[in-house]
Amino acid sequence: MRPTYLEDFYSFLRFPSVSTDDQFAEKLRECAQWLAQKLKSIGLEADIVATAGHPIVWARNKHRPGRRTVLIYGHYDVQPPDPLELWDSPPFEPVLKDGYVFARGATDNKGQILSHILGIQETIEQNRELPVNVHLVIEGEEEIGSANLGGFLNENRDALRCDVAVVSDTGMIARGLPTLTYGLRGVTALEIKVTGPKMDLHSGIYGGAVANPITALAQLLATLHDHEGRVAIAGFYDRVKPLEDWEREAWRKLPFDGDKLVLKETGVPELFGETGYNSLERVWARPTAEINGIGGGYQGKGTKTVIASHVIAKLTFRLVPEQEGDEILKLAKTHLRKNLPKGITLEITDGHSGPWYLTDPHSQIGEAAQRALHKAFNAEVALIREGGSIPIVSEFRGILGVETLLMGLALPDCRAHSPNENFPLENLEGGIRLNKAILQELGH
Amino acid sequence: MRPTYLEDFYSFLRFPSVSTDDQFAEKLRECAQWLAQKLKSIGLEADIVATAGHPIVWARNKHRPGRRTVLIYGHYDVQPPDPLELWDSPPFEPVLKDGYVFARGATDNKGQILSHILGIQETIEQNRELPVNVHLVIEGEEEIGSANLGGFLNENRDALRCDVAVVSDTGMIARGLPTLTYGLRGVTALEIKVTGPKMDLHSGIYGGAVANPITALAQLLATLHDHEGRVAIAGFYDRVKPLEDWEREAWRKLPFDGDKLVLKETGVPELFGETGYNSLERVWARPTAEINGIGGGYQGKGTKTVIASHVIAKLTFRLVPEQEGDEILKLAKTHLRKNLPKGITLEITDGHSGPWYLTDPHSQIGEAAQRALHKAFNAEVALIREGGSIPIVSEFRGILGVETLLMGLALPDCRAHSPNENFPLENLEGGIRLNKAILQELGH
Repeated sequence: MRPTYLEDFYSFLRFPSVSTDDQFAEKLRECAQWLAQKLKSIGLEADIVATAGHPIVWARNKHRPGRRTVLIYGHYDVQPPDPLELWDSPPFEPVLKDGYVFARGATDNKGQILSHILGIQETIEQNRELPVNVHLVIEGEEEIGSANLGGFLNENRDALRCDVAVVSDTGMIARGLPTLTYGLRGVTALEIKVTGPKMDLHSGIYGGAVANPITALAQLLATLHDHEGRVAIAGFYDRVKPLEDWEREAWRKLPFDGDKLVLKETGVPELFGETGYNSLERVWARPTAEINGIGGGYQGKGTKTVIASHVIAKLTFRLVPEQEGDEILKLAKTHLRKNLPKGITLEITDGHSGPWYLTDPHSQIGEAAQRALHKAFNAEVALIREGGSIPIVSEFRGILGVETLLMGLALPDCRAHSPNENFPLENLEGGIRLNKAILQELGH
Repeated sequence: MRPTYLEDFYSFLRFPSVSTDDQFAEKLRECAQWLAQKLKSIGLEADIVATAGHPIVWARNKHRPGRRTVLIYGHYDVQPPDPLELWDSPPFEPVLKDGYVFARGATDNKGQILSHILGIQETIEQNRELPVNVHLVIEGEEEIGSANLGGFLNENRDALRCDVAVVSDTGMIARGLPTLTYGLRGVTALEIKVTGPKMDLHSGIYGGAVANPITALAQLLATLHDHEGRVAIAGFYDRVKPLEDWEREAWRKLPFDGDKLVLKETGVPELFGETGYNSLERVWARPTAEINGIGGGYQGKGTKTVIASHVIAKLTFRLVPEQEGDEILKLAKTHLRKNLPKGITLEITDGHSGPWYLTDPHSQIGEAAQRALHKAFNAEVALIREGGSIPIVSEFRGILGVETLLMGLALPDCRAHSPNENFPLENLEGGIRLNKAILQELGH
């Protein structure tokens, strides 16, 4: 691999392009500018398209009639890096260690989208042109729900007319094992605020005579699940499509043990989840209700004998076919209001949403993807679903009318969204080969 | 009131003497030095006694045989001021508004102990000496459980020999209504840490296959109470002494409505507490389990789709006669371990403890206290218990063999432990009169 590729990777990673927090908005703009410059330098046209939020980088080669048009999608925004104290090196100062580059965004999604850019660079250098018409659409709001990408696709629907979308923002089931992801979970979010007294109270002076908002919130959150790990919201599972027999069978034949993998990668004392499903099934095909954060009262050192005025919790629901985000939010809110303990008030704020995705891995382009994956990694291709959400693939289908090939390069221990996120150079190189192979396959 | 009294008060309040956080240790030392200097300036001997924690200020007049010896206790340490954003003015920059001084510690306990010091100052100025032998013991660790005061009392037991202790660290039931507190709740604390995965996880990649520590903690904390507001820990109420009929009757005759007071002062949407008791009874004579703080996962702006590695909660239990702190902690730990959800681990750390207190308001010194209170405020004296904890009064009984007169000067809206803590100058003056009256009564 050329040393300049690593330089490009490091430059890309050094931007703290955290989309969730407005104080980083300028850094996202700088990151988009760097990307556009890089894309121009390899021979593409590239624009930075302003949105109501963070800008979108849109690049393309000279399109010629009679060829397939491929839209390659990625994102340059990243998750917040906290908790900072758990990183072995600063999250925005990339470090290479044993072949892995450590930095926030290394896998999700900078390393993966960069490999496509470098693949295109190599093809153009070798053949002067690409075998297909290409759009590169790289957004800055994936981690906050891609609120403005749909508008961009709608406004530019004609210019973006294409035959298929290619996205590397999912995982390989193991190092060296190429993987085609044909399904994704969706997500919908809400935030709860429980308020009791108008100010923090001395728990000696008032304790016993007023409801404690933290106690009330704990009681409320405890109603979200039954003791078998099932979500206890009425109607939550009504639209869930059961797993197909062929999927369960295919997944059980995969050359790794999902339960063991989860135990090893997470370090949990034991597995826990919905009764009747194994870990892969739980993550790939079953919905969840997760509390992502909670906070209220005194969290510092020692003791402070207060009754907190209020406490918040952040919730997300992972959705599977055929659940509908708006309906789930409505059911959740009804559940929360119905189970509200006495003596407190509840405020609920909706967060971002994204639908689930399911496509046919045995379609014509699905088979092309399988051939390209095999060529790039020289191994049998695994057909899987994934537990994460890429809301935009449903918009590609809805707005542009195309299916999406999810050919991910993330390894199970990449620590996306966690401290010490990393990406192996091996996969940066594999991704370059994959880009060349898929464009060639789709160009036939 | 002399202007110098206000200057003294402001100087005392400007020390951020937050005992719970070690970074303020130097400020506590400076505060103790200021106190000792003040006490010397009014004609007392004063020493700063080092302890394993924050120092104790010990002052005395020239003792003469044949007189009663009175120990006046107070504390110069204060609660942490956070949440800072809810203060109308900075917590360590005292402000006088409509006759009230606003600052952390204004009521708890700097204003109250200062009124005793100023009372002694006036008596000495007027009569050249006090009518009794006096010890002033002013510690710096009341808010963290007075861990080193017991040792100090033990080491100096002979020198501290006395007949009665006087403490102004409790409340008046209303402005202008003098109050003798004959009972206090105790407190015992513990901190819980629930851990699942070894790091924060992407809730898409792992959500559903591992227990969520925040969900598990919510389920665990929800088991602490039943739906009628009773603590659901087995054995928790076994030793609780029922309220005496005369107490219930006396409290119901007090010239204010406890329920209305709690509603007004706290701003809660409705009262909530143990079924079968009114607000005063709940706070003064019933034990509680309170969650004082909780925190884990993402608490920043927007959404972060993580499963937190761990989450903490801080608990305190308010104790009433005849509960024993160690036993309650043991019962609580047994309960928490027994109700532990699957898939996570639990760590419990003990915090500080202090026993409840109960004395007879109709004893000889109790009657002296009632006369002094009547003289200082010219109104009928209310006999009450309080919900807060002053662990040291049990040590005065256990180590020095004396009862304590709790003659508090805090008003119900003083906001002790909360933002905008305040103390009326009226009570600083009332406290000065009270000090003169009680020393005179005890000197007879």
